Amino acid sequence: MTDLFAFGKKILDNQAFSKLLATELILFEEGKAELGLIIRDELKQQHGFVHGGVISYLADNCLTYAGGSVLGNSVTAEYKINYLRPAKGESLLARASIIYAGKTQATCDCKIYVINNNKEKLVAVAQGTINKIDYKM
Amino acid sequence: MTDLFAFGKKILDNQAFSKLLATELILFEEGKAELGLIIRDELKQQHGFVHGGVISYLADNCLTYAGGSVLGNSVTAEYKINYLRPAKGESLLARASIIYAGKTQATCDCKIYVINNNKEKLVAVAQGTINKIDYKM
Amino acid sequence: MTDLFAFGKKILDNQAFSKLLATELILFEEGKAELGLIIRDELKQQHGFVHGGVISYLADNCLTYAGGSVLGNSVTAEYKINYLRPAKGESLLARASIIYAGKTQATCDCKIYVINNNKEKLVAVAQGTINKIDYKM
Amino acid sequence: MTDLFAFGKKILDNQAFSKLLATELILFEEGKAELGLIIRDELKQQHGFVHGGVISYLADNCLTYAGGSVLGNSVTAEYKINYLRPAKGESLLARASIIYAGKTQATCDCKIYVINNNKEKLVAVAQGTINKIDYKM
Repeated sequence: MTDLFAFGKKILDNQAFSKLLATELILFEEGKAELGLIIRDELKQQHGFVHGGVISYLADNCLTYAGGSVLGNSVTAEYKINYLRPAKGESLLARASIIYAGKTQATCDCKIYVINNNKEKLVAVAQGTINKIDYKM
Repeated sequence: MTDLFAFGKKILDNQAFSKLLATELILFEEGKAELGLIIRDELKQQHGFVHGGVISYLADNCLTYAGGSVLGNSVTAEYKINYLRPAKGESLLARASIIYAGKTQATCDCKIYVINNNKEKLVAVAQGTINKIDYKM
Repeated sequence: MTDLFAFGKKILDNQAFSKLLATELILFEEGKAELGLIIRDELKQQHGFVHGGVISYLADNCLTYAGGSVLGNSVTAEYKINYLRPAKGESLLARASIIYAGKTQATCDCKIYVINNNKEKLVAVAQGTINKIDYKM
Repeated sequence: MTDLFAFGKKILDNQAFSKLLATELILFEEGKAELGLIIRDELKQQHGFVHGGVISYLADNCLTYAGGSVLGNSVTAEYKINYLRPAKGESLLARASIIYAGKTQATCDCKIYVINNNKEKLVAVAQGTINKIDYKM
């Protein structure tokens, strides 16, 4: 486990909401991050699909991780997400990477997949801005 | 309670994820909707603020309600959110309304406030597209 | 003419692209701005409506003006626009205002109208982030 | 020249605003499109860079082309753009492709580059929704 990955896991452990959803850090390297989530009934909406809010949460968090991999402590300033298909399957996987990073701001994108029988299907795409923050974590 | 409001409450009851977060429908009229949420520790991130993913979820859901108030069964196709301030307080309130609605699509905006001692503070703004869907709920 | 308005007009005069399109500064106050544009044939697309790119340009520029009214020299960092209706008429009017401003960044929204026989019709809505810049104009 | 490319060129010829800017269709295949633009003084803003509105226009148009390559006659319903760097150079190049397409709607992304001495530098990224339209062109 790299220091960066250990740092990333510690942050996730300190996010009560991520613990409630049981989010896992899968990859955390300079410029990219992956977060995963087992789909369970309490994450669904009225049609039996994963609630869009869960997908948004995962995208938002993964964007921050990607940006934070080079900026350090960071928050998502803004993002946009397009939902492509209803998400039904075993788990969600978000993959974010940095498109461009300055000293205090990074622009990142994120693809969110649903996984079923080891097959990935793209369910949403997001693009956003990550801001470095000064206060300590 | 109007029929529309009762219909809205039933949908929220059928969203397992909204029950997990304990979201409440506060207002549901033609062209607008309000959703509220008591802030509790398990909705927070590592700095003690409400997790951005909770705010996104609430915005996304409230946008769908606003659009759905005229379109009927609907989903959020896409949206964009700007976070303005860290959210710290007693509860969250999202207020969404329709900017323009066609027959199958509506463009809506949403403001999300944190409430503390009966004072509202704006913490995020969102804008998105709601699509009517055909399958039954 | 206020100093701020004179300053705004000078910037517009120095934007060659805004001169090409013949954009006019209509209002420029602390926290808000309005830009107008006479619709002529060379601003249209293949269906005879104003080209979306013209509407985007006007929204983008008006967002920067709104943010710049409190930040000083600024650029649009990012924005999102939803087109609501085809734009057909005599002129375009963009109205932007600040939703929230910090020291170096402002979140603004903008509504874009087409005007015909003194009647305004909303054709697009935008939301974006304005960043203060350091280099002189 | 393929039929699709010829069709694409005809549309561009019929966009008066694209003629004003002297946009060129560079590539138009199923699922992707490229548009180019020679940078000249009248496309600039007050700092000597290409005006953001020109970059937005090119992104918007290229997104529509990408979506239209499978949907047929289409318009951009909405998009979001992040500016990464000031654009200074000889020409602009936009490359858009479809992320996901349904029957009446496609989600596309677009990267916009500035070209100088045959070197590409990324200056903006965009993501948006293209809607099929019914009326004839």
